Amino acid sequence: MKNTYVAIMAGGVGSRFWPGSREARPKQFLDILGIGKTLLQMTYERNLALCPKENVLIVTNKAYKSLVLEQLPNLKEEQVLCEPSRNNTAPCLAYAAYKLRKQNPAAVMLVAASDHLVIDIAEYVARVSAAIRFAAENDALMTLGLTPSRPDTGYGYIRFDLKEIENGVHKVTQFTEKPTAEIAQKFVNSGEYVWNSGMFVWQASHFIQQLEALAPDIAAIFHTIENQLNTPTEQAAIDEWYPKTRSISIDFAVMEKAPNVFTVPADFGWSDLGTWNSLHVEAEKDAHDNAVQSDNAHLYDTTNNLIRAPKNKLVIIKGLEGFIVVDEDDVLLICPKNREQEIKQITEDLKKAGKSSFL
Amino acid sequence: MKNTYVAIMAGGVGSRFWPGSREARPKQFLDILGIGKTLLQMTYERNLALCPKENVLIVTNKAYKSLVLEQLPNLKEEQVLCEPSRNNTAPCLAYAAYKLRKQNPAAVMLVAASDHLVIDIAEYVARVSAAIRFAAENDALMTLGLTPSRPDTGYGYIRFDLKEIENGVHKVTQFTEKPTAEIAQKFVNSGEYVWNSGMFVWQASHFIQQLEALAPDIAAIFHTIENQLNTPTEQAAIDEWYPKTRSISIDFAVMEKAPNVFTVPADFGWSDLGTWNSLHVEAEKDAHDNAVQSDNAHLYDTTNNLIRAPKNKLVIIKGLEGFIVVDEDDVLLICPKNREQEIKQITEDLKKAGKSSFL
Repeated sequence: MKNTYVAIMAGGVGSRFWPGSREARPKQFLDILGIGKTLLQMTYERNLALCPKENVLIVTNKAYKSLVLEQLPNLKEEQVLCEPSRNNTAPCLAYAAYKLRKQNPAAVMLVAASDHLVIDIAEYVARVSAAIRFAAENDALMTLGLTPSRPDTGYGYIRFDLKEIENGVHKVTQFTEKPTAEIAQKFVNSGEYVWNSGMFVWQASHFIQQLEALAPDIAAIFHTIENQLNTPTEQAAIDEWYPKTRSISIDFAVMEKAPNVFTVPADFGWSDLGTWNSLHVEAEKDAHDNAVQSDNAHLYDTTNNLIRAPKNKLVIIKGLEGFIVVDEDDVLLICPKNREQEIKQITEDLKKAGKSSFL
Repeated sequence: MKNTYVAIMAGGVGSRFWPGSREARPKQFLDILGIGKTLLQMTYERNLALCPKENVLIVTNKAYKSLVLEQLPNLKEEQVLCEPSRNNTAPCLAYAAYKLRKQNPAAVMLVAASDHLVIDIAEYVARVSAAIRFAAENDALMTLGLTPSRPDTGYGYIRFDLKEIENGVHKVTQFTEKPTAEIAQKFVNSGEYVWNSGMFVWQASHFIQQLEALAPDIAAIFHTIENQLNTPTEQAAIDEWYPKTRSISIDFAVMEKAPNVFTVPADFGWSDLGTWNSLHVEAEKDAHDNAVQSDNAHLYDTTNNLIRAPKNKLVIIKGLEGFIVVDEDDVLLICPKNREQEIKQITEDLKKAGKSSFL
């Protein structure tokens, strides 16, 4: 337990929740479910069952440092790792791994996204604990595998050997990024595939060893500044060197090529809350299938909507069906739920129209 | 001209424009057309063609005195008549008439609503001028009659003698309040009926004479305090005595019973803007039939809506048809245009729910 660390990745700028999320306040910093806690706060809390609170790191963009410290006041400043540029997940996790290995050569690190939903926390803790135990004793790159609930073509699929090694751990045999619908359906039917959750467990030292072999350019950069990590010059070194790293995901850079990848298939009620629709699916709904994030909404003949409004704002909606209604202080969005993928185009139009201040 | 006065009635609390209008800021005080002027300001300006600006009176509720002076900064305080209670139009016009007769025994007063729309102002001025000339020379109660554009059952209809007396003036022979659809259609087809506009012209002295005959209780109250009108004790006298007057409309109290009622049929593009729908009809619309009162709205596949939002608020609407969308600072209303009559029920529900602060 004292060798276990959690690195929560909180640097993303998801635009699919606009106008709920903004560049200045992405989804992980929002109480997107309307339950009184942000996704980051929920993530932090559920991982406290796995390690001491001083072993939690938040890896984020410099721009969000103060937001992180505001939302997680128990953190010390040195627990917040600040990326000066957005270089995807491989450099992000390399930074955390080098820093942790230097702190504790026996460090086992769990990597968690800051903006996902986990429903069954006991099951989550049990499955992650099994992964941590295995990783502590083996040279292994572990990934939490999610039992697919539908043939979604938006996720990566991981094939695993059906023979259990121990405690629910299986060898990974293949990665498939975003398959066609037909192939996704085959994967789901086979029972041999799980979704790639983006949650990983490994010894920091073993991860670095794999990084040196598979992405030596990234490893070299962190090797250069290793002496300065956990010292007063860490941030200056990171500011200088981090932007030089290649922007690449950990899946492409390491996981898909590494020889010793294992998974713990799990089913703990998970959503990456990637879209307003997925939020509607996960959120609590009234008898008419409306997910309402408002403390003062009156709905009449109104069904199957997602409605979000500022605290205390009186919201009266009549005769509306299947819409997303998001009222933020400076933006009102009304869009059919089944056309939410077009919101991305809208935000691009806004950028072209010189209205980036609303993004 | 110097004997002509305009009394603008601005004491109403129309609830049908909620949440655009509020008890604290009724429709006449709103820029409901989104053109940069409130209905009261538009009314004031169009009547300046008919009389000197010091001859304009605004009769309003005490609660709105400061709003009136704020929106019409050229007014002197004594031009704003403040009713301490809401007693309908007969006492309101009696107050103005007694005050004006004392100021100028030859006063001819035009009565205008503060919250109506007039499109063709030149035609309005011509028709009203004809009425003023006739009223100045005759003991007459004049009403502006509006050529009906449809068999609306919400208005009062006035039958007139087709024989013109002079300058477009006709004798009125009958009042019919809110007819059935069938009867309204007959009225429109006949060409002998006009809508009762609520705009009147008469000599103050003749009006008072008729009031004494037809509503002596109301006349008696103003007779009691006549000495105090246009003196420093006017408001105190009004505060004491006005609430004792009977609450009754000028149509019921006087017009429908008086012997010498005349009308000038007119057609100057009029709307009482009584509903969001009527506002949608009158307002400027885009190519997709959307009336948009917003300086920052982006509409996609969106037709036939009325959309109103605060200045600078970014409004994105996709795939919406036939709705009223009103975003005020503290209230958001989304309601099908063809169900707007149900908004009244909503405001009553709110009252019962203890949410009167939003009304």
